[in-house]
Amino acid sequence: MMRPIQNTHLFKEIHQQPEVIRELVSQPQTAVTELADQIRSHAIKQIFIAARGTSDNAGRYAQYLLGAHNRMVVTLATPSLFTIYQQPPDLSGTLVVGISQSGKSPDIVSVLAEGKQQGALTAAITNLPNSDLATIADIVLDLNAGEELSLAATKTYTAQLTTLALLSAELDPSQTYRQDLQALPQRVEQVFALEEHVRHLVERYRYMTKCTVIGRGFNYASAFEFSLKMKELTYTIAEPYSSADFLHGPVALVERGFPVFIVGPSGKMVPELKATVDKVKERYAEVVMLSDQQDLLAMADHNLVLPSGVPEWLSPITAIIPAQMFAMYLANTRGFDVDNPRGLHKVTETW
Amino acid sequence: MMRPIQNTHLFKEIHQQPEVIRELVSQPQTAVTELADQIRSHAIKQIFIAARGTSDNAGRYAQYLLGAHNRMVVTLATPSLFTIYQQPPDLSGTLVVGISQSGKSPDIVSVLAEGKQQGALTAAITNLPNSDLATIADIVLDLNAGEELSLAATKTYTAQLTTLALLSAELDPSQTYRQDLQALPQRVEQVFALEEHVRHLVERYRYMTKCTVIGRGFNYASAFEFSLKMKELTYTIAEPYSSADFLHGPVALVERGFPVFIVGPSGKMVPELKATVDKVKERYAEVVMLSDQQDLLAMADHNLVLPSGVPEWLSPITAIIPAQMFAMYLANTRGFDVDNPRGLHKVTETW
Repeated sequence: MMRPIQNTHLFKEIHQQPEVIRELVSQPQTAVTELADQIRSHAIKQIFIAARGTSDNAGRYAQYLLGAHNRMVVTLATPSLFTIYQQPPDLSGTLVVGISQSGKSPDIVSVLAEGKQQGALTAAITNLPNSDLATIADIVLDLNAGEELSLAATKTYTAQLTTLALLSAELDPSQTYRQDLQALPQRVEQVFALEEHVRHLVERYRYMTKCTVIGRGFNYASAFEFSLKMKELTYTIAEPYSSADFLHGPVALVERGFPVFIVGPSGKMVPELKATVDKVKERYAEVVMLSDQQDLLAMADHNLVLPSGVPEWLSPITAIIPAQMFAMYLANTRGFDVDNPRGLHKVTETW
Repeated sequence: MMRPIQNTHLFKEIHQQPEVIRELVSQPQTAVTELADQIRSHAIKQIFIAARGTSDNAGRYAQYLLGAHNRMVVTLATPSLFTIYQQPPDLSGTLVVGISQSGKSPDIVSVLAEGKQQGALTAAITNLPNSDLATIADIVLDLNAGEELSLAATKTYTAQLTTLALLSAELDPSQTYRQDLQALPQRVEQVFALEEHVRHLVERYRYMTKCTVIGRGFNYASAFEFSLKMKELTYTIAEPYSSADFLHGPVALVERGFPVFIVGPSGKMVPELKATVDKVKERYAEVVMLSDQQDLLAMADHNLVLPSGVPEWLSPITAIIPAQMFAMYLANTRGFDVDNPRGLHKVTETW
């Protein structure tokens, strides 16, 4: 017999997110301040991020956030250049960041080790401040999310995003961003008002075998992370796209009833996402919208209504939570063990 | 009635590749030399590449090639920071490269325009040297591939890879790379010995609805491009992965008979790919291998045998051709028009 979903680690960890985020936002994060000081004093303009899986999606968020708000060029690392080819690029003058829940992935550790050897400033964003990754890094940003027992990462992902948001705000003198962050924990709590609706909506997708998830800009990361959760927990073929990349070819896949999930909170992407809905609707797609924006909600077949008032730059933190719940309840209604998805390990030893 | 496949633009353009590549390798490419000189004289270490669709996969190749052979940090652009958010990163000191067959994609043009305004060196890799992109760029690398009439890009992709390979060799004093390049056109011709085999093998996949394509390192780009061709031409759900990312979660999707295509030419990735085959075989996947490496070929269910003697850094150019043929013949056997796939336009106007 299956455990009730409420007794799973995954359920508990999804529900711990308001508390984890509140802690990060309300307590002084001295390591974040120190890293921002170092970035300023070394006039660093380039960040090189090494991460895998869910943490790589946090890196994707960093590309947009630190690009848009802090004018940084953020590069996602190609770990095999460091490990298998042993021909790493020149990282001098770059900040090298490793993002890893466990801090144990050998390829991510290798990138930081090489950065350090080349004299670059290094930082780790991890939930295990005694891990290999943390030991090697000059500065450790501890997620302080409590142990993550479920194999699918949830609270460490939103904690990574929140930590990156704190770093970006620390690098920018504007007060607006700090005020936005102060309001965040309450918005995160409000997301859970959706939970009953999610629990019912998944029934419709019991036999869905494939789908696409679209998001762009700040929420490009959300499309990737929603897809990954769908794959890990429900074994649905789910491919993430930016709306622009999707129209450069893969839109050909859409046939009548093809499910298209769109992560589209309020913000500058709304006109582009409306055009995307029009395009896939021409092909009779089934659109599921995660948004707080009325026009987008009105165009979709089914909605997951996000709390309003969240600025676009922080929306990936609130928008991913209904997606996590969707994947959890869908897995549950399919009879899968959400804490032990087949083929997953907490630390994946890749090189 | 369907046209015979031999009369399609796609067939002709796939078969023009040996000639296009021979032309690029054998004729002096003064623009490539000029760009290499400029990179050296400005001591540029960072490249920022804007591209979409197939051209973005050429950018992925550049990340590994220019990283491994030239120690450059190569960043794939986030065009929405330039267009929709209008908050571009600081590109000073960076080489900004736009890759686009048509040179008309407005978002790619925007990235180059911003780079130029910030005083960065800019270059265009395009098949239309009079396009907007070429007009704005400081240096134009003309693919000189002849007009590409099929909507699915093939010869312009291998021409983009060859141009990047020429640039890398020009930046490196070692003679080996130049010799490798001289031998390339003949290897490309040899690939076509496979064609009859491909034409028969696709029959087995007539009703395949989903699959995964794996490649890593230099051939990470090949996994993406094979997937894209499969999606564009055959409407199969095909998701690309590096073998490392695949083991961080998505391996959960593999069930008995799930098709896994692996692009695995000889080189440093062979041990890693062997381990990947073992993993997916534990889950009873069906493995189709594109390789010239005997051990890998022996492990797979079906093979597309690549010509031997191609160095790993150039193998993405030869390895993608059987993949293009596979997608073309599969589309043909499904009764699809390969020159006019549904939902595709030659110039996609995204912002």
